[in-house]
Amino acid sequence: MGKAGLPVSPLAPTSFPDLPVIEGVEFASGAAGVKYQGRTDVTLIRIAEGSSIAGAFTKSSTRAACILDNQDKLARGKDDKAGAAIIVNSGNANAFTGARGRESVTAVTGAVAQALDLPEGRVYSSSTGVIGEPLPHARIIAIIGDLATGLDQGGAADAARAIMTTDTFPKGASATIAADGGDIHIAGIAKGSGMIAPDMATMLVYIFTDARIAPTLLQQALDRGLSSTFNAITVDSDTSTSDALILAATGRSPAAEITDLASADGQAFVTALHGVMRDLAQLVVRDGEGATKFVEIQVTGAASDGDAHRVAMSIANSPLVKTAIAGEDANWGRIVAAVGKSGAKADRDLLTIRFGDMVVAENGWRAPDYDEDKTSAYMKNSELVIGVDLGLGQGARTVWTCDLTHGYIDINADYRS
Amino acid sequence: MGKAGLPVSPLAPTSFPDLPVIEGVEFASGAAGVKYQGRTDVTLIRIAEGSSIAGAFTKSSTRAACILDNQDKLARGKDDKAGAAIIVNSGNANAFTGARGRESVTAVTGAVAQALDLPEGRVYSSSTGVIGEPLPHARIIAIIGDLATGLDQGGAADAARAIMTTDTFPKGASATIAADGGDIHIAGIAKGSGMIAPDMATMLVYIFTDARIAPTLLQQALDRGLSSTFNAITVDSDTSTSDALILAATGRSPAAEITDLASADGQAFVTALHGVMRDLAQLVVRDGEGATKFVEIQVTGAASDGDAHRVAMSIANSPLVKTAIAGEDANWGRIVAAVGKSGAKADRDLLTIRFGDMVVAENGWRAPDYDEDKTSAYMKNSELVIGVDLGLGQGARTVWTCDLTHGYIDINADYRS
Repeated sequence: MGKAGLPVSPLAPTSFPDLPVIEGVEFASGAAGVKYQGRTDVTLIRIAEGSSIAGAFTKSSTRAACILDNQDKLARGKDDKAGAAIIVNSGNANAFTGARGRESVTAVTGAVAQALDLPEGRVYSSSTGVIGEPLPHARIIAIIGDLATGLDQGGAADAARAIMTTDTFPKGASATIAADGGDIHIAGIAKGSGMIAPDMATMLVYIFTDARIAPTLLQQALDRGLSSTFNAITVDSDTSTSDALILAATGRSPAAEITDLASADGQAFVTALHGVMRDLAQLVVRDGEGATKFVEIQVTGAASDGDAHRVAMSIANSPLVKTAIAGEDANWGRIVAAVGKSGAKADRDLLTIRFGDMVVAENGWRAPDYDEDKTSAYMKNSELVIGVDLGLGQGARTVWTCDLTHGYIDINADYRS
Repeated sequence: MGKAGLPVSPLAPTSFPDLPVIEGVEFASGAAGVKYQGRTDVTLIRIAEGSSIAGAFTKSSTRAACILDNQDKLARGKDDKAGAAIIVNSGNANAFTGARGRESVTAVTGAVAQALDLPEGRVYSSSTGVIGEPLPHARIIAIIGDLATGLDQGGAADAARAIMTTDTFPKGASATIAADGGDIHIAGIAKGSGMIAPDMATMLVYIFTDARIAPTLLQQALDRGLSSTFNAITVDSDTSTSDALILAATGRSPAAEITDLASADGQAFVTALHGVMRDLAQLVVRDGEGATKFVEIQVTGAASDGDAHRVAMSIANSPLVKTAIAGEDANWGRIVAAVGKSGAKADRDLLTIRFGDMVVAENGWRAPDYDEDKTSAYMKNSELVIGVDLGLGQGARTVWTCDLTHGYIDINADYRS
């Protein structure tokens, strides 16, 4: 069972991966009783002096107090290499809580700064859970002392569990690159399963690496990967007030410093980082609320990449497409309608639609060798690929989504998240 | 039971209204077996010589063959006052059916033109139902002769029934204005319950009036009402390939011709017409697939009307807001999130949110006298008003939507519409 008493998603991996230790990063998780009882709900992460930090956050105009605080601190401390920390709680988003929300952020990050002897400007925070209720921050502060003494390099799996809300499984991903001078490791954890239509980042994601790389370059490496990873997933078209991704590079790898993303090691690092980001993003979709199908939507032949994104997201967010997939119905007509409403340039008579390897529609009509039985059999798979070629240009984008089921209604009509 | 075997929406009116006869308009409905068996599925409407015709259609880039044909005919025949006809079938949308789709439209409208001795350029058509399957147009043509001999001024109620697909009740609305020289009557019918996020019009709407008014002026009167009626509703954010509204004015009223929309009679006519349009639009929402709540969303204080529309639609289309409403949960935090993702100018700390008359949030936080019990009791009503004031300017917009329930999943995961 997941944390909210929900059964584990049928699309979950069989186990949490064995994440490599990242030298310079330690975790501690504890139970503060923010909202949930009998489970961990706070994670403290200490990042060693000399680390570079980068971040990406929701563009929502109603973003939470901690998001504004993180953005402010990252902007002010661009080249800061002091030690740093991240404090995360689940159970309460501290969003839309007015002046009191800001006070809570100051209180919690101040307590962490004091406990770990860090400048407060290097303490980042995240809160996830219900919106609009005051954060009982005293409960969090009460356990910071214990967390500070329990910090452990091997605590990432526990942290992935403590940050869950309606998630049904903890999410982690990693990569290791053989670079000039030694290996570089990357390890990340994430949470998220509803209110997922990220706008610059997804719910909560923390990625760590021992690479030696300057903050500006680290931010560039991160930014380049967003459109094809976290901004390429959607569960329900709803964007969170609290989406945050924080990436820290400790520089503890024996590998040479990365000073150019176009160098051989730079390219290998960017590719591996984006791979970890894509893995985490896909795990969020695999834990989509009520999901029973993992769906990759490949759009090609668009007038531009932007148009391809619009078409792909229009399909991925269409309730009619998502319910048809839930019903294992090869209803490609609903895909045509989703292309039509997307706002992207499209010509009905140039559209080609594929389910897996099967062409189901082309030249503005059902494909001549369309086989309803074969297509229906394909729809029974739990992993589906839908291909749409617009026949107009070179624009392309792949996004990932899940189906829309009774489980989504159950979770969201009955659970105040 | 509705046509697809669904129970009638709990939000349905108790009966179909008594529509006034519009002189110069006759209806006939019959069973062609396009897809459904044992029910009427084709309607023929004859409009007398001397009538003005106006229309509004989906902006989808994958619009159906009949939509393109109607748009072409209306553009060519702007000042045409020849007799006219509309032929409508349910059960098959003839959308994304390539060259064969165009052939079907030509065949059906040609047969109607011949049967009623009309120019083919004045025969409009609509098809609604499944996308991507060839229209068995011979079945429609086979009953046109019978329909032509059965035309009747009182057939509007039967027509409203014949054009239904997943609709659970027939939809009609009317108005009568006392104008200079005599009464002017307006009567309309509509269908629609899913794939409802209209872009210029809703599913299928036919409105008739005996007003005497030139085609250009009639089109202006229609266009002015779209943004506050059919473009102000959404069931599921999906836009149809086949949305169409056709408005015909027969000029048979003894009232003087309307030559200026700003005159007293012109204003009365526009107001009454928009009232009928709003009534029909709201009936479509009341028949939203799986709907149990009818929700009015009033957005005020936006920087512009456009921004107000964006915010209102962002709330109305949010699956999280819609499932909270289904669960009778006063989860206003999800409304904050929907405002934040809308893309409209918004300041978290200036937001005010009302449920009915109760202020639930203001000044960036829960209202001081927020009462969870009272708010929860309010959510049990089947008709809800959600008010959002952005505190920024004069922009305002009201839209209507419904909740997202298990019924929506049932209908759309299991029924190929």
